[in-house]
Amino acid sequence: MHLVMIGDEFVDAGKVDSAYFDYGTFFGDGVYEVLRSYNGRLFALDEHLDRFKRSLAEVEIEGIDIKTVRDRVLRAYQKSGLADAKIYFHITRGSGVRDHAAEGLTPRFFLTVSEIEDATSQKQNGIAVITAPDTRWKHCDIKSLNLLPNVLAKRAAHKRDCDEAIFVDDKGYITEGSSSAFFGIFGRILHTSPLGANILPSITRRFVLELAAKVGLQVQQEQFRADEAASADELFIAVSSKDVVPVVKFNEIQIANGKPGRYTKLLMKEFGELVKK
Amino acid sequence: MHLVMIGDEFVDAGKVDSAYFDYGTFFGDGVYEVLRSYNGRLFALDEHLDRFKRSLAEVEIEGIDIKTVRDRVLRAYQKSGLADAKIYFHITRGSGVRDHAAEGLTPRFFLTVSEIEDATSQKQNGIAVITAPDTRWKHCDIKSLNLLPNVLAKRAAHKRDCDEAIFVDDKGYITEGSSSAFFGIFGRILHTSPLGANILPSITRRFVLELAAKVGLQVQQEQFRADEAASADELFIAVSSKDVVPVVKFNEIQIANGKPGRYTKLLMKEFGELVKK
Repeated sequence: MHLVMIGDEFVDAGKVDSAYFDYGTFFGDGVYEVLRSYNGRLFALDEHLDRFKRSLAEVEIEGIDIKTVRDRVLRAYQKSGLADAKIYFHITRGSGVRDHAAEGLTPRFFLTVSEIEDATSQKQNGIAVITAPDTRWKHCDIKSLNLLPNVLAKRAAHKRDCDEAIFVDDKGYITEGSSSAFFGIFGRILHTSPLGANILPSITRRFVLELAAKVGLQVQQEQFRADEAASADELFIAVSSKDVVPVVKFNEIQIANGKPGRYTKLLMKEFGELVKK
Repeated sequence: MHLVMIGDEFVDAGKVDSAYFDYGTFFGDGVYEVLRSYNGRLFALDEHLDRFKRSLAEVEIEGIDIKTVRDRVLRAYQKSGLADAKIYFHITRGSGVRDHAAEGLTPRFFLTVSEIEDATSQKQNGIAVITAPDTRWKHCDIKSLNLLPNVLAKRAAHKRDCDEAIFVDDKGYITEGSSSAFFGIFGRILHTSPLGANILPSITRRFVLELAAKVGLQVQQEQFRADEAASADELFIAVSSKDVVPVVKFNEIQIANGKPGRYTKLLMKEFGELVKK
């Protein structure tokens, strides 16, 4: 039998909340999603649920009814009463005695709804980013709870007064941000990394690529280098909670005139229209 | 403010156990150790604490007094009254609203003591292992809670009636097991991967290497390939909870005569002596 200690205290193993034995904590053994609403309407719920379903399958967490998850998200959002909400949810493999390959656990669902953080200033003025080595595992296409490299990169960015860290692989090519997709505009070409095992299939990215033609941009899904990024005409990140956010400083180098670029602003505008639909 | 849902139920955010907001779960943002006792004595406690201290520093979890951790481990072990105990403990960055780069959280300590699982049969008869692609992040030298690739590899092993998965890198070289160090004996040479960012500095490994000369083995810390492993004279894994465990089947290929090898048995014996000291 177990003896359990939390902080300095011994606790009765039978009375410890099962959250303390969550495989999310022991192994990061779970997957998650973050989505938002705009003015009272959830955006891209089904796209998020599709991705979630795929993540669950990839990590072999079975027996989850996605309709139940959908229902929970809708119920929680309605109950929150928030016009602009951020919804986070995860499912972990379960709770139990720590064992890498335990079978028969009951998956655990956890969800929070919070007010979306205000990104007005970031969107109007742009943000600064730094690069960080992409030390992540080889299945970044799975939206898993193994996010320590992302945490460490984001912490490094904050230490240098930057809002985001952009991962760069061993060959000097940009993959994506620590919690965002990354884009460069060179002339009328919109560049971003192609989807692959090293890239999260960002839902905001997908909509951005769909909107590109509308604002007069051609899309090129091809990796580009960190040194090329610094000489882009425009840079931006895309993230579910804020959609398009201009990047005006890259590794301390000012991008163009240091203000959000023309196409980036057009994309933000189009995204604003899209979320009303 | 938050709205929180656990499973199907809405819960008062103010009453939710802080474990639900643990950064261990959100990000795998924490580090851990596992050690054991032999017949009433903890083995290599200070070595484990040294490694733990290093892991904490690497992930920038600050303000932890290792003496306090040491004291907790000792108190918990004494209280357990177990002769042969497994002690697991972790520290996560803290608990709070999910934010990749939150500052000022209070680190959280969690520890369990349980009876060591009986490895007699595994040690007497040897185990079967399979290989799995090493998909882990690039700082496996940090003993972090980001263990999803390890979980997935171990699950794959179990599906094929194997006890352990041995990671193989992109070039075909073995790194280590999903929760163990890995060794091959070729003639009188004991091979194992050299320490590096892709290898956990296993404490059992360190003692095995020290014991090698005693049993007449020369040590070569150099990576070897999965196809070479299958033709080794002997194979074994090393893990804190069981020390040396012979491997008699590798990717369904029988190793030598399919029984624990001579040197492996000598190493097990020497380890048995070591833990008495």
